[in-house]
Amino acid sequence: MPDAYTPRPEDKFSFGLWTVGNRGRDPFGDIVRDPLAPIDAVAMLGEIGAWGVNLHDNDLVPIDATPAERDRIVTEFKAACQRHGVVVPMATVNLFFDPVFRDGAFTSNDANVRSYALQKTMRAMDLGAELGARIFVLWGGREGTETDACRRPDVAVKRLREAVNYLCDYSLDRKYGFTFALEAKPNEPRGDIYMATTGAYLGFIATLDHPEMVGVNPEVAHEQMAGLNFLHAVAQAWEAGKLVHIDLNDQAPGRYDQDFRFGSANVKAAFWLVKFLEDVGYAGPRHFDAHAYRTEDHEGVKEFARGCMRTYLILRERAKQWNADAEIQSLLAESGTNDPTRYSPAHRDQLLGRQFDRAGLARKGLAYERLDQLTMEVLLGVR
Amino acid sequence: MPDAYTPRPEDKFSFGLWTVGNRGRDPFGDIVRDPLAPIDAVAMLGEIGAWGVNLHDNDLVPIDATPAERDRIVTEFKAACQRHGVVVPMATVNLFFDPVFRDGAFTSNDANVRSYALQKTMRAMDLGAELGARIFVLWGGREGTETDACRRPDVAVKRLREAVNYLCDYSLDRKYGFTFALEAKPNEPRGDIYMATTGAYLGFIATLDHPEMVGVNPEVAHEQMAGLNFLHAVAQAWEAGKLVHIDLNDQAPGRYDQDFRFGSANVKAAFWLVKFLEDVGYAGPRHFDAHAYRTEDHEGVKEFARGCMRTYLILRERAKQWNADAEIQSLLAESGTNDPTRYSPAHRDQLLGRQFDRAGLARKGLAYERLDQLTMEVLLGVR
Amino acid sequence: MPDAYTPRPEDKFSFGLWTVGNRGRDPFGDIVRDPLAPIDAVAMLGEIGAWGVNLHDNDLVPIDATPAERDRIVTEFKAACQRHGVVVPMATVNLFFDPVFRDGAFTSNDANVRSYALQKTMRAMDLGAELGARIFVLWGGREGTETDACRRPDVAVKRLREAVNYLCDYSLDRKYGFTFALEAKPNEPRGDIYMATTGAYLGFIATLDHPEMVGVNPEVAHEQMAGLNFLHAVAQAWEAGKLVHIDLNDQAPGRYDQDFRFGSANVKAAFWLVKFLEDVGYAGPRHFDAHAYRTEDHEGVKEFARGCMRTYLILRERAKQWNADAEIQSLLAESGTNDPTRYSPAHRDQLLGRQFDRAGLARKGLAYERLDQLTMEVLLGVR
Amino acid sequence: MPDAYTPRPEDKFSFGLWTVGNRGRDPFGDIVRDPLAPIDAVAMLGEIGAWGVNLHDNDLVPIDATPAERDRIVTEFKAACQRHGVVVPMATVNLFFDPVFRDGAFTSNDANVRSYALQKTMRAMDLGAELGARIFVLWGGREGTETDACRRPDVAVKRLREAVNYLCDYSLDRKYGFTFALEAKPNEPRGDIYMATTGAYLGFIATLDHPEMVGVNPEVAHEQMAGLNFLHAVAQAWEAGKLVHIDLNDQAPGRYDQDFRFGSANVKAAFWLVKFLEDVGYAGPRHFDAHAYRTEDHEGVKEFARGCMRTYLILRERAKQWNADAEIQSLLAESGTNDPTRYSPAHRDQLLGRQFDRAGLARKGLAYERLDQLTMEVLLGVR
Repeated sequence: MPDAYTPRPEDKFSFGLWTVGNRGRDPFGDIVRDPLAPIDAVAMLGEIGAWGVNLHDNDLVPIDATPAERDRIVTEFKAACQRHGVVVPMATVNLFFDPVFRDGAFTSNDANVRSYALQKTMRAMDLGAELGARIFVLWGGREGTETDACRRPDVAVKRLREAVNYLCDYSLDRKYGFTFALEAKPNEPRGDIYMATTGAYLGFIATLDHPEMVGVNPEVAHEQMAGLNFLHAVAQAWEAGKLVHIDLNDQAPGRYDQDFRFGSANVKAAFWLVKFLEDVGYAGPRHFDAHAYRTEDHEGVKEFARGCMRTYLILRERAKQWNADAEIQSLLAESGTNDPTRYSPAHRDQLLGRQFDRAGLARKGLAYERLDQLTMEVLLGVR
Repeated sequence: MPDAYTPRPEDKFSFGLWTVGNRGRDPFGDIVRDPLAPIDAVAMLGEIGAWGVNLHDNDLVPIDATPAERDRIVTEFKAACQRHGVVVPMATVNLFFDPVFRDGAFTSNDANVRSYALQKTMRAMDLGAELGARIFVLWGGREGTETDACRRPDVAVKRLREAVNYLCDYSLDRKYGFTFALEAKPNEPRGDIYMATTGAYLGFIATLDHPEMVGVNPEVAHEQMAGLNFLHAVAQAWEAGKLVHIDLNDQAPGRYDQDFRFGSANVKAAFWLVKFLEDVGYAGPRHFDAHAYRTEDHEGVKEFARGCMRTYLILRERAKQWNADAEIQSLLAESGTNDPTRYSPAHRDQLLGRQFDRAGLARKGLAYERLDQLTMEVLLGVR
Repeated sequence: MPDAYTPRPEDKFSFGLWTVGNRGRDPFGDIVRDPLAPIDAVAMLGEIGAWGVNLHDNDLVPIDATPAERDRIVTEFKAACQRHGVVVPMATVNLFFDPVFRDGAFTSNDANVRSYALQKTMRAMDLGAELGARIFVLWGGREGTETDACRRPDVAVKRLREAVNYLCDYSLDRKYGFTFALEAKPNEPRGDIYMATTGAYLGFIATLDHPEMVGVNPEVAHEQMAGLNFLHAVAQAWEAGKLVHIDLNDQAPGRYDQDFRFGSANVKAAFWLVKFLEDVGYAGPRHFDAHAYRTEDHEGVKEFARGCMRTYLILRERAKQWNADAEIQSLLAESGTNDPTRYSPAHRDQLLGRQFDRAGLARKGLAYERLDQLTMEVLLGVR
Repeated sequence: MPDAYTPRPEDKFSFGLWTVGNRGRDPFGDIVRDPLAPIDAVAMLGEIGAWGVNLHDNDLVPIDATPAERDRIVTEFKAACQRHGVVVPMATVNLFFDPVFRDGAFTSNDANVRSYALQKTMRAMDLGAELGARIFVLWGGREGTETDACRRPDVAVKRLREAVNYLCDYSLDRKYGFTFALEAKPNEPRGDIYMATTGAYLGFIATLDHPEMVGVNPEVAHEQMAGLNFLHAVAQAWEAGKLVHIDLNDQAPGRYDQDFRFGSANVKAAFWLVKFLEDVGYAGPRHFDAHAYRTEDHEGVKEFARGCMRTYLILRERAKQWNADAEIQSLLAESGTNDPTRYSPAHRDQLLGRQFDRAGLARKGLAYERLDQLTMEVLLGVR
């Protein structure tokens, strides 16, 4: 039965085909679930109230499909999306599964592999555009090393830049209107992946031919794997106008890529994140890039997907409550005055001439323990 | 007795006053070593063959010193530097020790603290300029949070930008000629520090008023704490023209800040780093931001500092040997042809029309195990 | 005003003198709070409803105190405890602060240091016994290495065993009635600490002269620093009859020792822990070995301590609710039959002769996503 | 051509069938290498000078094989071993690949799964015994959780104990002469695996019916994943008489299970390990539980395997050199006197009466920086 935490289209919840369709294989174990055909995945997403579905090229079209097969598959998929009221906001390309990419795609030492990766991406862009996507994600899962003997890492950066510049031009040329969203990850499946953090991509974007066409797609698990504060990475991207897309899931730090249900590993971090996205008015998709435990059948997968959305909506409600809490707001009131800090000779002289009461400024308790405890009590629903 | 690993001035080895002067206090234990006066530290650095000495303002001048005391101290210090043939290539500011900074300096919620931090930095720049430094490092050790309740992280980014813009203007105004080097760290002493990685700062620099005046100061330990590949961060910075300074030390991942002797925790990573710096012709200081174990007396501190430099020089020799190794070089020879990847309609059509032998490209062994094992044997001196 | 989450003595909440008395010094910053005298700490603990206070010898008695000073301090402290209705359930010894222990106490290479550590511990036991403590914690904070060159680690194990055996004999001899609780930590303040995990101590205890006198004192932060599941460590200790004491706090994995307010970093892990302790009927102290952020004054410290207890009590209530939830309980009902697994030739033959429907057993969905989502909703108070 | 680092049978180097036979599939990518038949793997191991080959039941015999197929396979395999001069020192059982084990084997909530796991292990023991193995490894790769909602962890410990007790009885009954070696891992493929560390198993063994039949099989990567000092775990096991087997490979901390070539990630840690095993006279197999990068073909796999053994032998030579280095040995000479620490009233009184020169003991430099730098120079071959 619907309640306050039932998803609606305006919530912009999306799932990748590879998430609800994940079959549960891992490095030590075999598949545990039957395949879920893309059109069945779309039906499931429609049923549970999701707004969008995302895909890699080969989630939908097999790598060996003929053009005719490809066209038939795409036609059927579009019909299914329409039938179930599901849109395709984002598309991406799989540059990691096939053995040809075992040592990278855009950064491979083999120029043929680099060219093939470009071609494959262009076709994935054709596919995405045909399905109506306006966001194109690039995750360079194999762009990395197990030994830094294999190439100088600055060479890898140059190769990556060439590729992204090329693809921007292709989008402009074809009038696809894509904004690219670069997705960072520190390691796995490579020993180390180049462009390990969202920050690294923000630095990289500034060196591109068309920085205005390119932003980032931060993923909770990818920053948390390295023990980094995901909110801080998202906020930096947002503040720079570069938050194009976001991958929501969960992850314990310092481990293999877990892709857990959103909020299930660190619900407080998830709370700050939801609060931030809602407070700043982020208008893009809320994409759940997660998958169900291997213990689940298809019914369990559905519960998993529902849980991602419910937890987001519960946390959104808690964020509103936090913002409306009088004691919390009073603790937040900023101290000091906001003197202008634009440089000028006059300001310089005034600033250099000031005397500060260092001990006095240091003495004041900031009541952050109270503030954080109140947050916990809002979060736990006892306030 | 001098050998092939004895440092020379052209090696540009520098140490912070706070490194050889570290007294060994830690969160669970008291100081273990007597203080080392700055002029004695300079004498020690001269004796062991270091080229430069770096300092925070308060490493040399107490925070409460009168202008007269300050001037006397600086005069004596300059004389000591000259006497011992040691230069001051870099200066920085301590915005973390005093309790006034317990919740940040440039990003504090208290406008008075932010102003005081600016003033203190301007005076530290005066000091650095007087000592001849042309690099000014900013490490925001307290710019962070234990609870994200305290401020929105995008506000912190804005405050940080205001401060760096202001300081750039001050340097221009005073004609100090500083290049700023921003130093990232993921956590400690704060629960999370803003601008957690070198990449985050590369992204931030692109949003400044004077990006050309600002680069980064990556530190081995700070990236390795988060389990990140330090070489990759350094290479990205170098490729973007932003490698202004570097902090060499060592660190086991996923731990408190250890600041171990260079090369002593992960000598293979140190090898790739030295090789990169030498291969690309990095001409800046090689700064050892490390300190001796608490088990050491002053003699042990000297051995520690000597060890940092010796290991660098040993690894530099190994890097030359690696570059000259015929088998290694033959394994590195790149496959494929380097077809141009500038976008054009013609290139687009040619690329889209190519047929790739995916299976053939995937089949070829890349011999990276052999390459890495040869590296190990070069490193271990058995080749 | 008291509510359902107001602590009572029967909750057995205790704090170390060093927790509420923490002055906020860290490796990069100075003290931020005035000292809190032990008798004032006891008053504060009484005021906020704590049941017990724990201490290291030197938290109460300075290392250089004369016997007369020591006796006066102890007398006053006992009076304060009585006055404020606070008991001393546990005592311990500081073998890490003084420089004499910079390379270990019981495992030092210096036999004099080892002897001094024993003597100091015996006197701390005298003190603890006098104050009524029946639990004696041993945390070997300096028993470790930065370089494994310094001693063979099996030698360290032998030295540690000698010490614990000796101290057991001393307790028996003096009829102190102590149960020892060994506390593990993986690193910090040493590069690596011997006996890195609670499990390591469980293995060690089995090799002692009096294993029945010795158990463990697991600490949330110490297992979580290494990214380990704290609940699993506690459960193994409990199941083996070795859970003597517990240190409650919180910690993000892969970082410096944070000692955060209980439940504030990973509230779901805290929930499972509280549920376990309550479900199994753990009757020992709930000791909060945490400290307030450096942003706090003494009022903030009080809020911090209150928050530890409130969160425990909130989670205890949530655990009861979880146990009483009909849907959760129905999902938990165990499948299969519990056939006896005591070995016998007859059972062996019967087992070897069975045919299992492997595919059938593999097919069943276990509904753990639903179960975990229900847990989240109980925890967040929306169920 | 053979050199000082060419393996000989007395070095007792072994590889699992699953190591050289690894086909390179990972969570994000497909297989990259053709299958290597067990008898071909044995031939390869013989060719490169390995002494032994280990196996899981299903590495050799498919899970669905008929008894006749099984017997034929085993006969052929024994012949191949004999032909190539390779022994089978260790056998184990695969309780993780088949979906039936998706929620554990011995600790599953389903009694049928638990029984099937026992039966499968008994048959794997039959197989191992037939092949001449005297060590039986148990790695409970699926004994764990993604959510602790699914079972109480003390229940898991009890179930695990029942299973190991049963299997000990089976070995005794069948007169197989097995020593069991329990292998810990903190996580992956489960969110958390029970018995996360070697220490946890040492504690568990003490609670078994036949502790004398059971020891541990520590794996480099499994302790290093959690950032723990592997040497310390091995030393504790050795000192307790429980080091039955060892898995050599390498791993960066805080990541997915990498199983890199021995010594290739942290060669200094590998050095201390080899030195310890050789110094104490460990006489068991040196098993390399690693696999080649995905970039490799079968020739690369061979280089990988050769590299594991070469690096071990290089480090063994370096360890001898370290032991023979006069300066190192002089730095190691122990300070203080070894006074007896057996408890007695007389010793007690003497100890309590001693006066220690705390400051004097604290003042002495221990020269560990020098000692560690000398170690680096021995390791790097410049001494």
